[in-house]
Amino acid sequence: MDTELIDKLVMKKETKIIFLIMDGLGGLPEVPEGLTELETARTPNLDALAARSICGLLDPVGYGITPGSGPAHFALFGYDPLKTSVGRGLLSAAGINFPLSDKDIYARVNFATIDADGLVTDRRAGRIDTETNRRVCEKLKAGIDLGGEAEFFMEPEKEHRALLVLRGDDLSDKISDSDPEQPGKAPFAPRPLDKSAEKTAGLVAKLLDKARRILSDEEKANMILLRGFARREKIRSLGERFGLRALAIAEYPMYQGISRLLGMDIHPPTGSLKGQTEALAKEYGNYDFFFIHVKYTDSRGEDGDFKAKTAVIEEVDSLLPSILDLKPDVLVVTGDHSTPAVMASHSWHPVPVLLASPLARPDRVSRFGERDCIYGGLSRIPMMHLMGIALAHAGRLSKFGA
Amino acid sequence: MDTELIDKLVMKKETKIIFLIMDGLGGLPEVPEGLTELETARTPNLDALAARSICGLLDPVGYGITPGSGPAHFALFGYDPLKTSVGRGLLSAAGINFPLSDKDIYARVNFATIDADGLVTDRRAGRIDTETNRRVCEKLKAGIDLGGEAEFFMEPEKEHRALLVLRGDDLSDKISDSDPEQPGKAPFAPRPLDKSAEKTAGLVAKLLDKARRILSDEEKANMILLRGFARREKIRSLGERFGLRALAIAEYPMYQGISRLLGMDIHPPTGSLKGQTEALAKEYGNYDFFFIHVKYTDSRGEDGDFKAKTAVIEEVDSLLPSILDLKPDVLVVTGDHSTPAVMASHSWHPVPVLLASPLARPDRVSRFGERDCIYGGLSRIPMMHLMGIALAHAGRLSKFGA
Repeated sequence: MDTELIDKLVMKKETKIIFLIMDGLGGLPEVPEGLTELETARTPNLDALAARSICGLLDPVGYGITPGSGPAHFALFGYDPLKTSVGRGLLSAAGINFPLSDKDIYARVNFATIDADGLVTDRRAGRIDTETNRRVCEKLKAGIDLGGEAEFFMEPEKEHRALLVLRGDDLSDKISDSDPEQPGKAPFAPRPLDKSAEKTAGLVAKLLDKARRILSDEEKANMILLRGFARREKIRSLGERFGLRALAIAEYPMYQGISRLLGMDIHPPTGSLKGQTEALAKEYGNYDFFFIHVKYTDSRGEDGDFKAKTAVIEEVDSLLPSILDLKPDVLVVTGDHSTPAVMASHSWHPVPVLLASPLARPDRVSRFGERDCIYGGLSRIPMMHLMGIALAHAGRLSKFGA
Repeated sequence: MDTELIDKLVMKKETKIIFLIMDGLGGLPEVPEGLTELETARTPNLDALAARSICGLLDPVGYGITPGSGPAHFALFGYDPLKTSVGRGLLSAAGINFPLSDKDIYARVNFATIDADGLVTDRRAGRIDTETNRRVCEKLKAGIDLGGEAEFFMEPEKEHRALLVLRGDDLSDKISDSDPEQPGKAPFAPRPLDKSAEKTAGLVAKLLDKARRILSDEEKANMILLRGFARREKIRSLGERFGLRALAIAEYPMYQGISRLLGMDIHPPTGSLKGQTEALAKEYGNYDFFFIHVKYTDSRGEDGDFKAKTAVIEEVDSLLPSILDLKPDVLVVTGDHSTPAVMASHSWHPVPVLLASPLARPDRVSRFGERDCIYGGLSRIPMMHLMGIALAHAGRLSKFGA
């Protein structure tokens, strides 16, 4: 089944859906007979909710596929992640709310350190602070002029990350990455991936050359690496597809960016999980759909810190009652993918999910954990179908066929 | 996997398959910690059968999709419900065994009541009896003449339902519904959906105008509403696809119509569930495939009558031994979709299924219910694949590949 069938069945209804997303939720045991992070966490509220919910496991992209955050979130929101691909550059631009234009080419920038031979020694330039980032971006903007051929923007993100924008006519995003993805190699020369990109590739080469010279006196950030060249893409919004007025309560630019590309309003960062749930309560009357993004389950998983990831899950559990007090018609609790602390990276393992609703048909799962969810009534399904199931439980889909 | 792969593997075998279909079988608990209709029903025979069957859950069309009876039944019989769509008008025509012709355009008619301002006050004309229906159809036939442009038929179904047929050259079914689908609105003018339909739309408008005048002295049935304009469609039959000689033992025109479109023979109505099982026994030597359709599980679900739906399931259970006495090679017991009494409507919830056969690999399910079927060996699968599984267990599919 295609996810687009849903769009044709959408009808108006005054019901509320909350997606509480713990990034990288799924995990693995630390020791052979052990429990996962979620199974280890003391989660009385999630367990009680699981007992009256329908549970299951979600595959973000496909069996054995480890997803990046982009495809995983598209799948969460009901977009086929194999058809809805957005370049990293565009995600960066949307994340910092750069005013998008059809004349733009976006690329994700990493400030990096290269040695005297031009080989990359640190792909993240020692994770320079955001202040340094700002300063170096200004320096590049002041020093680089691409003549009449294209306007040029360089916008700092956090730490060593920035956004490059080329704006002009006849530009193309069919450009290969310059980021070699591993230290010890020289940055690649940007190649045109088809004939239409030759002009742009030339501009990018010129720009990289100038950047290297301008940054040569920097101790750490003495080079830029480019990846994910992309154009603006028009993606049908959650409003257009599902008739939802949607609010993203996400603290990180990346997730705000994805939400913005899907037409959600973006709540300003609150600085804490508690702040996020308070924002939910405050805005509850103004939207139909709420995306609460919990970043630190993933961050602690990426750090390889099992205990700290468990603690984040416990903190979310403690805030669950304040969400349940709102009595949403549908509350989904899940992750966008797995980030087992023992792997310190994203993984392909399916993600536990629960869906609470008065119309959810109960199963026998009474604890929210990976092993319990195997026995859930949702079974193991592609993540992109979750949104349709949520809309159905919210009474927002009409019947198919006579 | 496409359902058409099956067709290429079909081989001849003298085996018998019975599909015992309880319409709208799947349900929901009435109270938070309660049981569903099927779980509540006392079903010793179904439970004993489940214990030696393979069980599972079927999704009629897709995750979160609530199907109409048409798509759900196509899926049951092994047809992709997203590819096999049949307009409501054609289902009506097939249901009353109207002799189909390629020159025909069919539409479903509801007799309705309109007020002095032309607004619909009752979309079902107070559910007039079938006698009145017959009389008003005759009146319309006698009063309407479309000149040389098209022949016109008006055939009563049950209560307020009828079939409209236009027969002629250059007619089109690309006509929008006149049925506004809710009271308080005026019937819509039928619009041509493309250029080829302009002539037909004109004829329909003329017909509706005359019908309103002719019916103006009727107390209840003073207007007709049209929907589901359709042409005859050639669907490959169960005989052509699977080599099955199939008999439908279904009491209702709609299900007889679907069966007829799929090339099944239709047993005349018997008036009772017991009559249906007796018909099965009597005809058992003459066919390979039997579709027994139990309507009242759905009707009582639609009425919101939990207890009465439970009672229908118990009645089916009591008749099961007489079916098992025939020793079919494959007996499938399931529904076409869910109709939870608490929702009083079709729903998207998956449908419990059991497949009994000497070749069914047993699982650990020992009770036939929604929650038990989660643990079944069939797992949760698209309904359209059930037919292939049944054919396999009946020894009617050859090996794929060397």
